[in-house]
Amino acid sequence: MTEHFPAPELSYEDLTIGRRLRTGTIEVRREEMLAFASRYDPQPFHLEETAGQGSVFGGMSASGWFTAALTMRLMILGEFKFRGGAVGLGVEAIRWPRPVHVGDRLTAETEVAAMRVSESRPAFGIVKFVTTTTNQRGEVVMTKTANVLIPRRAAPPRSE
Amino acid sequence: MTEHFPAPELSYEDLTIGRRLRTGTIEVRREEMLAFASRYDPQPFHLEETAGQGSVFGGMSASGWFTAALTMRLMILGEFKFRGGAVGLGVEAIRWPRPVHVGDRLTAETEVAAMRVSESRPAFGIVKFVTTTTNQRGEVVMTKTANVLIPRRAAPPRSE
Repeated sequence: MTEHFPAPELSYEDLTIGRRLRTGTIEVRREEMLAFASRYDPQPFHLEETAGQGSVFGGMSASGWFTAALTMRLMILGEFKFRGGAVGLGVEAIRWPRPVHVGDRLTAETEVAAMRVSESRPAFGIVKFVTTTTNQRGEVVMTKTANVLIPRRAAPPRSE
Repeated sequence: MTEHFPAPELSYEDLTIGRRLRTGTIEVRREEMLAFASRYDPQPFHLEETAGQGSVFGGMSASGWFTAALTMRLMILGEFKFRGGAVGLGVEAIRWPRPVHVGDRLTAETEVAAMRVSESRPAFGIVKFVTTTTNQRGEVVMTKTANVLIPRRAAPPRSE
């Protein structure tokens, strides 16, 4: 299991609707999950087993923002790798249908749902990506729809 | 300036549409911003001044997920404090209209946009919150609309 999934840098022109970008796999480690929750989402069910068991999660569970952050890491270390980088413009939806627990092994897949050249920034395309994060049992723990600014290749020189 | 904004724990019944929940203020520290980006969103414009200057951000800028995480911290340390905790069901929208830079001082305000009792979990309400994160110049750096499970007070005993 590795979170690294070597892949070439892509540009807008390499994408097509329906193309899927894969990632490696990352394990949810207790220390990291607790450090994240302690700093960014310090609620008892993210920090204590007993509080988690008494909650709707049925056990100590990760903050949804931690799942989102781990998914972003997986993406950048995987095939979601763009020449010049990918700038998130906004998110249209995130769902967390199942909790994430210590020891879970997460992987993600991102599909190109829509794409167009930016009118205000013609050096970029605006791409709608749908990302699905799953655990070691293939259960979906997060879905995300986001609009991202993706660099286009330099325009070819005019043949004059 | 402090990120702590002492407030009582609330329940669903304490909310009304239009009620605003405030937070303290947090400074974006270089080490934390870089540590977050290095782990969760390792793209050059989040990690290096020169790469940031060459990007659409015009300078090294925070990952949007870091802004989201800091906002969550501000909320939990502020008036967004619920007896039994608040469980995010999903996000309907996040926008990052302006970049966040080292030294920025962020604060947030969360407004109750809609609320109803959960049909499947009658011990909870489902509340739609709109959160606006602003910097020290009052400029909006993030807006977020989220649906959250909020505990109701225990039902009063029947008078029989």
